[in-house]
Amino acid sequence: MNITNKMKIALYPGSFDPITKGHISIINKAVPLFDILYIGIGENNTKKHLFPLEKRINWIKKIFENNPKVKVITYKNLTVDLCREIDAKYIVRGLRTYSDFEYEKKLAYNNQTLNHNIETVFFIPDLKYINISSTIVRDIYMHGGDISFFVPELLIN
Amino acid sequence: MNITNKMKIALYPGSFDPITKGHISIINKAVPLFDILYIGIGENNTKKHLFPLEKRINWIKKIFENNPKVKVITYKNLTVDLCREIDAKYIVRGLRTYSDFEYEKKLAYNNQTLNHNIETVFFIPDLKYINISSTIVRDIYMHGGDISFFVPELLIN
Amino acid sequence: MNITNKMKIALYPGSFDPITKGHISIINKAVPLFDILYIGIGENNTKKHLFPLEKRINWIKKIFENNPKVKVITYKNLTVDLCREIDAKYIVRGLRTYSDFEYEKKLAYNNQTLNHNIETVFFIPDLKYINISSTIVRDIYMHGGDISFFVPELLIN
Amino acid sequence: MNITNKMKIALYPGSFDPITKGHISIINKAVPLFDILYIGIGENNTKKHLFPLEKRINWIKKIFENNPKVKVITYKNLTVDLCREIDAKYIVRGLRTYSDFEYEKKLAYNNQTLNHNIETVFFIPDLKYINISSTIVRDIYMHGGDISFFVPELLIN
Amino acid sequence: MNITNKMKIALYPGSFDPITKGHISIINKAVPLFDILYIGIGENNTKKHLFPLEKRINWIKKIFENNPKVKVITYKNLTVDLCREIDAKYIVRGLRTYSDFEYEKKLAYNNQTLNHNIETVFFIPDLKYINISSTIVRDIYMHGGDISFFVPELLIN
Amino acid sequence: MNITNKMKIALYPGSFDPITKGHISIINKAVPLFDILYIGIGENNTKKHLFPLEKRINWIKKIFENNPKVKVITYKNLTVDLCREIDAKYIVRGLRTYSDFEYEKKLAYNNQTLNHNIETVFFIPDLKYINISSTIVRDIYMHGGDISFFVPELLIN
Repeated sequence: MNITNKMKIALYPGSFDPITKGHISIINKAVPLFDILYIGIGENNTKKHLFPLEKRINWIKKIFENNPKVKVITYKNLTVDLCREIDAKYIVRGLRTYSDFEYEKKLAYNNQTLNHNIETVFFIPDLKYINISSTIVRDIYMHGGDISFFVPELLIN
Repeated sequence: MNITNKMKIALYPGSFDPITKGHISIINKAVPLFDILYIGIGENNTKKHLFPLEKRINWIKKIFENNPKVKVITYKNLTVDLCREIDAKYIVRGLRTYSDFEYEKKLAYNNQTLNHNIETVFFIPDLKYINISSTIVRDIYMHGGDISFFVPELLIN
Repeated sequence: MNITNKMKIALYPGSFDPITKGHISIINKAVPLFDILYIGIGENNTKKHLFPLEKRINWIKKIFENNPKVKVITYKNLTVDLCREIDAKYIVRGLRTYSDFEYEKKLAYNNQTLNHNIETVFFIPDLKYINISSTIVRDIYMHGGDISFFVPELLIN
Repeated sequence: MNITNKMKIALYPGSFDPITKGHISIINKAVPLFDILYIGIGENNTKKHLFPLEKRINWIKKIFENNPKVKVITYKNLTVDLCREIDAKYIVRGLRTYSDFEYEKKLAYNNQTLNHNIETVFFIPDLKYINISSTIVRDIYMHGGDISFFVPELLIN
Repeated sequence: MNITNKMKIALYPGSFDPITKGHISIINKAVPLFDILYIGIGENNTKKHLFPLEKRINWIKKIFENNPKVKVITYKNLTVDLCREIDAKYIVRGLRTYSDFEYEKKLAYNNQTLNHNIETVFFIPDLKYINISSTIVRDIYMHGGDISFFVPELLIN
Repeated sequence: MNITNKMKIALYPGSFDPITKGHISIINKAVPLFDILYIGIGENNTKKHLFPLEKRINWIKKIFENNPKVKVITYKNLTVDLCREIDAKYIVRGLRTYSDFEYEKKLAYNNQTLNHNIETVFFIPDLKYINISSTIVRDIYMHGGDISFFVPELLIN
């Protein structure tokens, strides 16, 4: 696939520690609107992750191996700088709760201050996945609970 | 323009009584992602409107007369039924406040209950227009105030 | 059943215009905690109802005809005054959204100001029913839409 | 008292239908910061009031008869236009709930759009009065309930 | 007291670091609805506590020493797993703010995903205690402030 | 300037790590209402700061060097205790989001519990600065992004 000027390219940034059925729901809703949807895994040195970066990348690659429009990328700089590098004019974000909305709205406006060409497009996940977060998955996982409802099968085996 | 099966068709439903710079901001952000964006004016007999339907239609037509992707339509049935008629798989909505988010989330999930094929895509308006609503425009207008910041120039002359 | 002093009696007040699967979810969660759960239909002269009072009463009676703990009652006075009459020390309310929470919290504290002996107990409905409201059911119904997901079967036939 | 250029003049607009202990709490907190605090009663023809304007004016005058800084005024135009007339550079508003905050923030920004010289100053009422609203007082009053906790004694006798 | 199948058993989980008048208000409202109310102190190794576990247990035991329905328990596993062990079908939680509501709603739905038999019952504290949190008590305590309004007398002497 | 009993003295407490255009907007709105406005920088040993205290103090002093009513002060005790020391009867706070409002409301009521003589006065920043926070500035700064929109020029050179 050649990247051309007319392509609609979007970035879905996050930690994906781990990727959940909530994330997948958002990706599935967003992907038909774009030519390429980059899943951008931010490498944040100050934040401790439960699952190693390699694993997080491979899970996402595996899950979307049959969808050539979904690509995985890692980054250490600002999200708007990554957008410039990959020619993404859209940032994709999911909204579940009021806190999400407040945080995402602030982020979207600040991103637009830093780069006027970037728009954020918001989606809500399937209702049954609305209470899932990576934080909760990690908490259940660390307490030895059953995370099979929350994450794709691939992560459990 | 022939409507084909592969086209991405969206509906932006509302009363547009009147259309504001906030609406226009949402339309401008949404339109590049779709092949057709219908502006759907709901005709609701129980709701009293300040500006007659004819005027509301013409304003929108005039504003977007150079953008063939934007079309105006009126409807009396359920929004999801209109979507079926016009082959729209997407509903476009703007989010300004928490109440917006709460209301729109409820609506989006109920629309999906009524028609599983419809997704709602959310945008936020340009920051400077985030406090505009048709309700406030009508209120200022009826008190003889100056609405020129809130609506396109066309509506004032 | 004789009403005794030790009985835990609760009131679930509302318009129930019409009763929805959301209401039923709340009732089913609340009823095991009480000896009697009154469903109190407020008769409010200033509020227009879509379904006649008689119908609303009968639907609820029919739905819970096998549960002797659930009783239907209508009232015109303040909710706290009805509580005194029926010896209810608890008010049951459902919480779906932030607006619900804000409104219910205000109401609960004002009810406690009016009658210090009354506590409000809150439940959340089953997740799949969280976006249901009587308002939305009436809206779909009046537009000729399909309300079968939202209300018990009894109301449709 | 002569109104001079250096005076800090504020307007506290509302319906005051009726004035509550919540309003009085806000006025008592705001008044030390200003030289004149106008209580502005909006006369809105489309809104039905429970208590006649004359009564609402007299109650406030009586309550603050010993405080020469508090003045009552009625108005039919936009709030920002009244501010210009009375030389008020400040609007005073109370915040109880999230809806209050959302509504007041929107209003404050729109007022500033209409008149750049006007700032809104926000106060929270004494905690015990945080759940009081004129709406709730009217509701209790119309159902024959006891409003003595909610309003100043003067209104009851 | 023999635990029988028909008993209504609830769990009120938390850190109680320290127990506040807000917690006590919730417990007093919840306890009449249940036969046993376990106060479950989660031992979380990653979370630093100000007051040692032993102290937190003893305070609660002391405060409710005359109420045989209130029992203290500590646990390290998932809350839903503790519920299974102690046969609790109800989780009790207090709601003060919007963040509480958002967090508790998410938790309640996730707990129900993990164990379909568990319902969460929500209470609001007495209004005068609505702004109390253990976090704020710890902050005042560490700055040498007076916490006597926020916690039971027992903790101060 | 001699501090007299009749002076209106306010405290605007925070970390100011760093001071932003949002803070400056709040200060500019608050200062006309008071005779002295102390900017109180809390020295919190458990919180890590990006910019050293000395720098934070000097920036604020420099920015307001022509306004004798604005004074900078540092403190380690409770905010209400500082208020007593400096005779401040008012605390000034900015409100941007719902979380701000929730947090500030809780704080204001707890401060009033600790010292009945202190009132909190709230302002909203200029709309264009509503999405600025010190946290976001630090994040952009640490990623090598451009913070010139967010902070006064002085901080960049």
